[in-house]
Amino acid sequence: MSDRIFNFSAGPSMMPQSVLEKAAAQMVNYEGSGMSVMEMSHRSKVYDGIINNTEAALRRVMGIPDNYKVLFMQGGATMQFSAVPLNLMVTGKADYAVTGNFAKNAMKEAKKFGEVHIAASSEDRNFAYIPKQDQINADPNADYFHICANNTIFGTEWNYIPELGNVPLVADMSSNILSRPVDVSKYGVIYAGAQKNMGPAGMAVVIVREDLLGHYRENMPVLLDYKLMADKGSMYNTPPTYAIYMLGLMLEWIEGLGGLTEMEKLNIKKSQLLYDYLDSTDFYVAVADKDSRSRMNVTFNTGNAELDAAFVKASVEAGMSNLKGHRLVGGMRASIYNAMPIEGIEKLIGFMQEFEKKNK
Amino acid sequence: MSDRIFNFSAGPSMMPQSVLEKAAAQMVNYEGSGMSVMEMSHRSKVYDGIINNTEAALRRVMGIPDNYKVLFMQGGATMQFSAVPLNLMVTGKADYAVTGNFAKNAMKEAKKFGEVHIAASSEDRNFAYIPKQDQINADPNADYFHICANNTIFGTEWNYIPELGNVPLVADMSSNILSRPVDVSKYGVIYAGAQKNMGPAGMAVVIVREDLLGHYRENMPVLLDYKLMADKGSMYNTPPTYAIYMLGLMLEWIEGLGGLTEMEKLNIKKSQLLYDYLDSTDFYVAVADKDSRSRMNVTFNTGNAELDAAFVKASVEAGMSNLKGHRLVGGMRASIYNAMPIEGIEKLIGFMQEFEKKNK
Repeated sequence: MSDRIFNFSAGPSMMPQSVLEKAAAQMVNYEGSGMSVMEMSHRSKVYDGIINNTEAALRRVMGIPDNYKVLFMQGGATMQFSAVPLNLMVTGKADYAVTGNFAKNAMKEAKKFGEVHIAASSEDRNFAYIPKQDQINADPNADYFHICANNTIFGTEWNYIPELGNVPLVADMSSNILSRPVDVSKYGVIYAGAQKNMGPAGMAVVIVREDLLGHYRENMPVLLDYKLMADKGSMYNTPPTYAIYMLGLMLEWIEGLGGLTEMEKLNIKKSQLLYDYLDSTDFYVAVADKDSRSRMNVTFNTGNAELDAAFVKASVEAGMSNLKGHRLVGGMRASIYNAMPIEGIEKLIGFMQEFEKKNK
Repeated sequence: MSDRIFNFSAGPSMMPQSVLEKAAAQMVNYEGSGMSVMEMSHRSKVYDGIINNTEAALRRVMGIPDNYKVLFMQGGATMQFSAVPLNLMVTGKADYAVTGNFAKNAMKEAKKFGEVHIAASSEDRNFAYIPKQDQINADPNADYFHICANNTIFGTEWNYIPELGNVPLVADMSSNILSRPVDVSKYGVIYAGAQKNMGPAGMAVVIVREDLLGHYRENMPVLLDYKLMADKGSMYNTPPTYAIYMLGLMLEWIEGLGGLTEMEKLNIKKSQLLYDYLDSTDFYVAVADKDSRSRMNVTFNTGNAELDAAFVKASVEAGMSNLKGHRLVGGMRASIYNAMPIEGIEKLIGFMQEFEKKNK
């Protein structure tokens, strides 16, 4: 299928062609079951195999310790903005690091349910950086400390794990999960909307340390209760069965490439190619501070809004989609998740060079 | 693909083979866009076309009046058990008709958020019937009156619309939506989990009368707010993009068959074949009262639990899956949603006759 394009969308985003081809081949009849995965009872033996294999693969790939539960939930990361405080605010106060738009939305949502303290922020420079450890003012008695591990819109990424003593660290990893190895044991909760590195939109994966379960707020919507979801194997009601299956295919692809260590190498290589080029020219400006740069979302501009618009227009004509930056930053953004091949990066850089030559 | 089986699952459930084949064909490259629907930014022009066409098709097929909003939400019907009281309990009290397991779950969830009055119940005979109008004790001042339009587990269906004066009627139509024409104007809210007649699991469709919007409870999870979802075109966050696309394909299939009037004729024919056979023999007993029978879920048994188990086992060997009844009823259940072809019914009846002959 040579007419596929390079899709730089921030999410939903590019998926490996081999994964899509396998999904297509299995669509009408999954492994001789006589039915599509979409048609399967979530309580059937064949579907049990699918969800159990997906969870086992995620545990293998991420090295999730046994004292963590894996939950497949609905509503994306935004629903987790509500679920986190409702499950974890035991004494009623939490710390938030505000490093971007979604980090801020998470913080605002938590305010509905308790006392929220902004323990770090990079809003002073339009979120162009990640605060350093000594810029964090953490409350040692907070119920948890929340970060957004990768800021899709601004192109920044936490490149260290903040030291917080005994306060559980909660991370929204929607846009960088599965892009690099993670020491899960350093986190209380990791959650991620699926639609970047995990498959189609419509699911959030939650990885939660067992000792944090059992404190869900009374008289709140039943489906956001982590303990209930853990006790029911994510099947209190019908889970997003097809999204779970697709995550299984995505994990199979990652394992085939050699797991997260290899995936990280590829992502370093891909992002470095782009950043190296950006650093080599004065025509383009990289938005994020060097030490805070994201491997997943590369934000840049020409310093001229008209020229930026011309760049985006011409890039579409050249077979690359969704390079327009978010309105909160302007300019351009190349989202280069796991499934973006190196050829896509090379094509983009070639295009950028051409554009520079023509417009310098 | 002749090795497909007849899948009598209560949900997720059978889908038309032509729909699955189209999804497979479009999986890697949707209509020359160069990408899968799964990979599309939900804010792109091509995806705009998909979601808008899906909503327009639903409005055409169901005849949804202009003063109703259509919302695509996540969390299935169970999330709506929470969302309905949170959006509609303005004075703080609601009526519930308890006609089965999910109706009861909806009622229990609403109790978290206000005063709940059981206005009708069929629990006295294990939910084998739908209460008649004169068995309903409705509160004229309730904020709404909630029914479960089709009770999947027990095999009963509301075959009339209760008369409630000005109290908005709210219906969970998860298991019979799109199976028959519905006069939407008689309802305040219709909602349905997708995984029976609307496509894969992971979505709920909500059809809500505009004048009921704007009363969402303060300090509750942001994503359950009907008004917010209406104002944002179901895109406050990333919606379940692929499920919405699949619903579009399902609606295209229904329109190709002639719409809900023709669909109802087929469903009457299919269910009548089964009920006629059940009524013609003493070997099998139909569970639901005649006037309350569901066209979607046909519950029956032999009166002998061992024989029921043998029936289920033999039916699997004969290429029919998921005929085992729910544990709350026992016996057998044939879920025969829109996508179950008449050949599946004929095969089931042939098998039932054989089984009767052998075991009488």
